[in-house]
Amino acid sequence: MFAEILTVGDELLTGNTVDSNSAFIAKKLTERGYWVRRITTVGDDVGDIKAAVLEILERKPEVLVISGGLGPTHDDVTMLAVAEALGKKLVPCEECLERIREFYHRLYEKGLIDDPELNDARRKMAYLPEGAEPLENSEGAAPGAYIEHGKTKIFVLPGMPREMKAMLEKEVLPRLGEKKFVQLKFLAEITDESKLAPILREALERFNVKIHSSPKGFGRYIGIIVFAESEVEAEKVVGFLRERGISLQRWKL
Amino acid sequence: MFAEILTVGDELLTGNTVDSNSAFIAKKLTERGYWVRRITTVGDDVGDIKAAVLEILERKPEVLVISGGLGPTHDDVTMLAVAEALGKKLVPCEECLERIREFYHRLYEKGLIDDPELNDARRKMAYLPEGAEPLENSEGAAPGAYIEHGKTKIFVLPGMPREMKAMLEKEVLPRLGEKKFVQLKFLAEITDESKLAPILREALERFNVKIHSSPKGFGRYIGIIVFAESEVEAEKVVGFLRERGISLQRWKL
Repeated sequence: MFAEILTVGDELLTGNTVDSNSAFIAKKLTERGYWVRRITTVGDDVGDIKAAVLEILERKPEVLVISGGLGPTHDDVTMLAVAEALGKKLVPCEECLERIREFYHRLYEKGLIDDPELNDARRKMAYLPEGAEPLENSEGAAPGAYIEHGKTKIFVLPGMPREMKAMLEKEVLPRLGEKKFVQLKFLAEITDESKLAPILREALERFNVKIHSSPKGFGRYIGIIVFAESEVEAEKVVGFLRERGISLQRWKL
Repeated sequence: MFAEILTVGDELLTGNTVDSNSAFIAKKLTERGYWVRRITTVGDDVGDIKAAVLEILERKPEVLVISGGLGPTHDDVTMLAVAEALGKKLVPCEECLERIREFYHRLYEKGLIDDPELNDARRKMAYLPEGAEPLENSEGAAPGAYIEHGKTKIFVLPGMPREMKAMLEKEVLPRLGEKKFVQLKFLAEITDESKLAPILREALERFNVKIHSSPKGFGRYIGIIVFAESEVEAEKVVGFLRERGISLQRWKL
């Protein structure tokens, strides 16, 4: 089961914003047992987004999570690009429009905006690719979309972290089943990574796991993450590493 | 002039690490006048890295910066994957080996490691794709590589942020010329993004610039970044926005 993530936004490509969204999404997908194989970031450009979506669908991931570019401004073009990639039209979603209307009325009542009425820019957010299921945005105006394309579940989420996180938790993860991957994290008290390398290689040959290691400052620790389909399998690896003289302590992230 | 960035590391795909490297690289490339069009992240897998490199080269960017996967462990396979993508062999770089030897001797003298000698894992870092120019790592063991492939300048850098940043500043940027893009950043005192949208659209039609806007909390400000080839062009846009009644203040990032 593998997944891909596509984040959209010029601010990510100019370095003005660090893409913490994709790490958040990746973590949640990994915990559900999905292997995130690739993360792609493109700008707010219909052609570039469409091209990226088509390339990703070609690789046939089980899940594609897209984040960013759902807002009201001229450069929020993700829904249009996704629709074009899928050969669909953008069609108005009445229930979305109703929620957008309510959202702006609430902001108006709180004194946060001057004008509660729908305008073209606000109305635009209610257009989804034909056949898409709207995903509720509990934290903002723009709805997301859920689209089944062949065997790929496509989720289109907003880019504002608060909105994206809420929609991921409430609307995406419940559609992805229960299965969990186990991640055990350790700090190895070994002074350099190169001495650990042959031992890790042997562990990979013996057990059905993935292992990631990365130095945490020279002369101190090396972080080790063991990914396995069960706690039992992961613990076997830990036992093996300890047998080989690696001193390990649990590492809380 | 467009550029792409490829970051490599399982820790990025599991969400254990936020990819701040690509934002740093993107910022520096943008300042040099490169338009970063896409960022791709793949895991420590020869096949996946190779596939990503081949796809990127197909799009013919002027610059490709790759970061991550140069260390001594079993999962550091970036140089091998880049060599395979280019149809080159990995060949030993004698001056690199000498620097690696000196690096471990310095760590040993500081009491940070137990054994200063070269072993297979340390020696592995001295192998670069045939024809590559080594890039000096002032902060760590693994050298980078500079490869000219058709019209694409390929730079392969380490993934440890301290090492990557030093190599980017000292070895990459000096090879990328002087030309600068201008970025002016503002906070617009306007209460919601949808009212700004038609004004920004008009600015885009009138001037040869790119504009990025993103809300900075409802009821407060909207961040606006104007990208232009000159300060004069950018200032024209600012003047236009002010004429249209948008109150702007300079925004320091």
